[in-house]
Amino acid sequence: MKNNIGTNISMTLFGESHGAAVGVVLDGLPAGFAIDTDRIKSDMDKRKAKGRISTQRHEADAVQIVSGFFEGKTTGTPLTLVIQNTNTRSSDYTKTHGRLRPGHADYTAFEKYHGFQDYRGGGHFSGRLTAPIVAAGSICRQILEANGVQIGSHIEQLYTVHDDVFSNDIDVLKDQIHTVNQKDFATLDPQCETEMKALIEKVAVEGDSLGGIVETAVIGLPTGLGEPAFDSVESILSHLLFSVPAVKGVSFGLGFGFANVKGSTANDDFEYKDGKISTLTNHNAGINGGITNGMPIIIHTCVKPTPSIYKEQASVDYLTKENVKLQIQGRHDPCIIHRARIVIDSVVAFGLLDLWMSKNAQGDLV
Amino acid sequence: MKNNIGTNISMTLFGESHGAAVGVVLDGLPAGFAIDTDRIKSDMDKRKAKGRISTQRHEADAVQIVSGFFEGKTTGTPLTLVIQNTNTRSSDYTKTHGRLRPGHADYTAFEKYHGFQDYRGGGHFSGRLTAPIVAAGSICRQILEANGVQIGSHIEQLYTVHDDVFSNDIDVLKDQIHTVNQKDFATLDPQCETEMKALIEKVAVEGDSLGGIVETAVIGLPTGLGEPAFDSVESILSHLLFSVPAVKGVSFGLGFGFANVKGSTANDDFEYKDGKISTLTNHNAGINGGITNGMPIIIHTCVKPTPSIYKEQASVDYLTKENVKLQIQGRHDPCIIHRARIVIDSVVAFGLLDLWMSKNAQGDLV
Amino acid sequence: MKNNIGTNISMTLFGESHGAAVGVVLDGLPAGFAIDTDRIKSDMDKRKAKGRISTQRHEADAVQIVSGFFEGKTTGTPLTLVIQNTNTRSSDYTKTHGRLRPGHADYTAFEKYHGFQDYRGGGHFSGRLTAPIVAAGSICRQILEANGVQIGSHIEQLYTVHDDVFSNDIDVLKDQIHTVNQKDFATLDPQCETEMKALIEKVAVEGDSLGGIVETAVIGLPTGLGEPAFDSVESILSHLLFSVPAVKGVSFGLGFGFANVKGSTANDDFEYKDGKISTLTNHNAGINGGITNGMPIIIHTCVKPTPSIYKEQASVDYLTKENVKLQIQGRHDPCIIHRARIVIDSVVAFGLLDLWMSKNAQGDLV
Amino acid sequence: MKNNIGTNISMTLFGESHGAAVGVVLDGLPAGFAIDTDRIKSDMDKRKAKGRISTQRHEADAVQIVSGFFEGKTTGTPLTLVIQNTNTRSSDYTKTHGRLRPGHADYTAFEKYHGFQDYRGGGHFSGRLTAPIVAAGSICRQILEANGVQIGSHIEQLYTVHDDVFSNDIDVLKDQIHTVNQKDFATLDPQCETEMKALIEKVAVEGDSLGGIVETAVIGLPTGLGEPAFDSVESILSHLLFSVPAVKGVSFGLGFGFANVKGSTANDDFEYKDGKISTLTNHNAGINGGITNGMPIIIHTCVKPTPSIYKEQASVDYLTKENVKLQIQGRHDPCIIHRARIVIDSVVAFGLLDLWMSKNAQGDLV
Repeated sequence: MKNNIGTNISMTLFGESHGAAVGVVLDGLPAGFAIDTDRIKSDMDKRKAKGRISTQRHEADAVQIVSGFFEGKTTGTPLTLVIQNTNTRSSDYTKTHGRLRPGHADYTAFEKYHGFQDYRGGGHFSGRLTAPIVAAGSICRQILEANGVQIGSHIEQLYTVHDDVFSNDIDVLKDQIHTVNQKDFATLDPQCETEMKALIEKVAVEGDSLGGIVETAVIGLPTGLGEPAFDSVESILSHLLFSVPAVKGVSFGLGFGFANVKGSTANDDFEYKDGKISTLTNHNAGINGGITNGMPIIIHTCVKPTPSIYKEQASVDYLTKENVKLQIQGRHDPCIIHRARIVIDSVVAFGLLDLWMSKNAQGDLV
Repeated sequence: MKNNIGTNISMTLFGESHGAAVGVVLDGLPAGFAIDTDRIKSDMDKRKAKGRISTQRHEADAVQIVSGFFEGKTTGTPLTLVIQNTNTRSSDYTKTHGRLRPGHADYTAFEKYHGFQDYRGGGHFSGRLTAPIVAAGSICRQILEANGVQIGSHIEQLYTVHDDVFSNDIDVLKDQIHTVNQKDFATLDPQCETEMKALIEKVAVEGDSLGGIVETAVIGLPTGLGEPAFDSVESILSHLLFSVPAVKGVSFGLGFGFANVKGSTANDDFEYKDGKISTLTNHNAGINGGITNGMPIIIHTCVKPTPSIYKEQASVDYLTKENVKLQIQGRHDPCIIHRARIVIDSVVAFGLLDLWMSKNAQGDLV
Repeated sequence: MKNNIGTNISMTLFGESHGAAVGVVLDGLPAGFAIDTDRIKSDMDKRKAKGRISTQRHEADAVQIVSGFFEGKTTGTPLTLVIQNTNTRSSDYTKTHGRLRPGHADYTAFEKYHGFQDYRGGGHFSGRLTAPIVAAGSICRQILEANGVQIGSHIEQLYTVHDDVFSNDIDVLKDQIHTVNQKDFATLDPQCETEMKALIEKVAVEGDSLGGIVETAVIGLPTGLGEPAFDSVESILSHLLFSVPAVKGVSFGLGFGFANVKGSTANDDFEYKDGKISTLTNHNAGINGGITNGMPIIIHTCVKPTPSIYKEQASVDYLTKENVKLQIQGRHDPCIIHRARIVIDSVVAFGLLDLWMSKNAQGDLV
Repeated sequence: MKNNIGTNISMTLFGESHGAAVGVVLDGLPAGFAIDTDRIKSDMDKRKAKGRISTQRHEADAVQIVSGFFEGKTTGTPLTLVIQNTNTRSSDYTKTHGRLRPGHADYTAFEKYHGFQDYRGGGHFSGRLTAPIVAAGSICRQILEANGVQIGSHIEQLYTVHDDVFSNDIDVLKDQIHTVNQKDFATLDPQCETEMKALIEKVAVEGDSLGGIVETAVIGLPTGLGEPAFDSVESILSHLLFSVPAVKGVSFGLGFGFANVKGSTANDDFEYKDGKISTLTNHNAGINGGITNGMPIIIHTCVKPTPSIYKEQASVDYLTKENVKLQIQGRHDPCIIHRARIVIDSVVAFGLLDLWMSKNAQGDLV
């Protein structure tokens, strides 16, 4: 409900872009898991703005573990992660907060909170809130990895540039996941990275922005994760993915492509081999009836272009009720998809761990 | 959690395809709402299999209101809807239940429930479970309509056939919603309905099946519905939509099309006119930062082809662990999208009412 | 929330006293558990009104398992229990429903539901709703018993008559639990049963009613059940116990008696013996810091006198807003504590199974 | 679930006694409420250890509002309160943590968390965690007070010393609530305060400790708060009260005294006067069928003696599995009930606000 999610483990998110800090409380984790804090840092770095294609706002993302962590291991009680906000220029916002930025939550926040919201930099609706999500996700992911699960994402499409897609060959896929997880700007084809970056820089000069599509793969999951009806794997993961700012589309396996094939193609035939059952194809992305079948989960997530652009836009001043021409100032990314990718990995990790922590899930955690 | 969903109102789903009955408990409804039971029946009829393009299994979908309904109105206590199962031929299933049907939950149910699941006709995973959802959704929808909200869906794509799309003109859209809600097979273009039905019949002869894409529109919503972070409108609705069997993709507004436009196009500029704020375009589908802005919500939902096909498929017998050739018998739809459309309307209605029942949607205490 | 409770397993309650049926949906149960339906019947019988000391309303409590039960075992999907209402004399109520019965929910239901509640026989607030709770509790209890847990309750006090109390000797306690579970009117001292029944008959003649205190014992629990902070064993069990109509007090171990002893007495010293840690006394009722320590849980629950009495009472007609003299008609128990005892056992069983189904609970289920 | 509670508003608790900080996230609050931070401080002071009768550990309880608070008002997004831990002498604990303190959660924490818990000073099970609860409760209470609700508690019994009880006269009760809220050591009879303090000092010299009973009154509530079945006012409040360390008994109105009266006494007759319905007596403590009837809520809560005593106790070293004689060192209160009183007020305030934030407490949709 609201800023808390999860059934078996839960995540409670708090903070605003220009408040004292942002953070998250992660509850229900198994006790005694040794957390690699360097790994948290490296995951946080993947989210960090870098180079010419990113905002010039340099965030200090030092993650402090405030509770639930003792002598290097989880205690089993609430694990709280806090990231102090620094380098925030509130002066950028105070004068103009009535002027609604198109594509942002400014207007809806005014309506929902009657003007009492912290409007600075998007406040609670800022992408800044994804920082604690990544920190929490990093811990969930480490637990999953210790149980043989690997997660990886890459930018499959950025406007006109298309990357390769994940392989259907499990061994190749494993290598691809390993590869993208080493990169800051995750593409399968290195040439594609160059083109995408060039495109972002070009659009930045125009004062415009871009979005794209992220492809995510998860391998090594046990069968039996997910619940019938309302807690299907797709339901749990989409709920989390649509909580990530700017996400407007989520699909599994063939996704919207299922409209273009017949059932005889859509179905994944079964095969019994080497003592185990698997499917010959994986159009359903490792999920049947909302429950994992042991095959890779393949997700496509569409991230819309950054709403903050420098081009002049038509808008309204909520306070004066005047139509205005809006010229956004400040520091903004012309594209966030390369940063969003680790946020996507993080919520997927949380969702899958939550399902795995259900006692009536098939697979047991180590 | 599992078969219960909702924060302010909740829906608890139960039953199996070939059990005694299927049903739902709807809790938290406002007291004193006069339910139109004929409307429930007409919504149930939209879900019913009809004509040559549908299964020959004729379901008796008489909805009994067991509780929470007194003297024609809701009592405010749990409203329970039960639909008896009739005309179930269990003999069709008992002999062959180890033989896993591709695209179905047979395998994952075996793995999750260790073989104790009711395997007849898909049991708890059957599309039959959408009947009580439609009955519950019909009540939620009536409450929304009494508050000025209209919901409508049509089949935007069926394999190679494409229907028109919903208009950006609110008045035209209102008429379109009215029109599709009158139809059993919902398309905007009547000619398109003829072509789609012909296509379904053709594929049925092949022993194959089809899926498609449903476009859903919601108008008349107040601003301020939805919560930041995890209970965004997109999160709540996608969670419910992916609980509908066969749904594999969900998007809002431009959806995956956001990858093909720049921010200057993606953003919806604001305008103040006749005392109210609205947007000039509606690419974000009436949702900013997860919260409604008063514009129409536009959803695209992809429904995969019916997994039950008559063509021979490769499979495995879970019990004997043998590779087998599977030839599905029984009565099955070559396409379910025309029936799925009302299920989609129903879960959308539930989700929006749930969000509306949040006190801080209005933010007042007394 | 509202009529749904539980984290790992959940129970959703529905129905009214004079509606079509009452029932409950039990979700999250382990799959493959063989339910003894005769045991459900015998538990239901313990709740049933019997003999001269009980109401003359003879309820048909045939429990129908509508879903989640296949070939004699739980399927792991929602298990629904429905009990049809029969022998309801609505005519007793219709004429007088505006006349508020003291001690009942008539007034508060009017206020909460604005007069739309089903007022017949207390509607959703009727003790009739405890029937499905007992049926659900019987299943939870059978699962606990299969895991070595025993639950038993007796009437420790009825007005001026006091029964013996449960023994601190675990072997004696085990026998006592066995004994009370054989009885319809549960006391440890048979002589005490005779006195209590005589007292109830005497008070019935006066047209008055009685309440009392139930003592409940649970043995065989593993250590580690319960959560810190808000899901302590005491929190979970009291939440459920106070959901039972007429319960006004709940305590654990010494309970309110803790006010009369010093810490040196209140504390239970530890002892390591025969390879296990236990406490020398059990004043804290097997619960430290909200988590089970393996010792017996001892609960005291106070059930107030039946609010329905035949003596004339001062009241108000809610509809006419007149002060009236109320003379309750119909069939009512002069005492319900002997029937409440199995309801108490049932909610305790549900609560403990819910805690046990938490993956991070120490003990694993068989 | 676990460390998160609440349906309409929620509270997520985190931290350990000797960790970096303790805190709470309060979500779902109405936006625009002006918080009096001095009031938070004065409520925190009531919880603070003071004078000779309390521990010599002086806690720095400076409450930092990290989020959800902007320009002096609530924003409507998660409000996070953090209290840094200072003056913690970890050295007191490290050497002896295997030695289980009777009456504490040491043993159960070892069993539940397999030894990975933060054992210093009780860790997550420390009374220190009540500090953020009081801070959160102070905010909830301010909101309730702004809506005409008053809450007050006093020590009704401390071992052999008994205070007066709250009056049945609403005007007198109002004054009594005002009086006890002015006091650090809350009794109605000043003479009683002197006797209780003297008794605590006497027992402290013995190296022993005391508990007692707190009586709490709530006035000014609207009718209709609370839900049928599982979210009765008693269920919600007892769930929270039993989450407070050392609470072992909770009752409402006559409580366990209901066993000693007949129905004709237990029932509260109704009266219509000056345009409103009220009851002539209030034995049911303003709650009928789990829902408020507008009369005062009267709660009795039993707090056991402080488990930390200086007398030698028999115990076990969990790590060496040896029986040991335990002599607790460090700084501990001989009695905590005078400090627990504000914690009780706080959870009661949270619970009632949560119920009030339910839309169907008023039942309207728009």
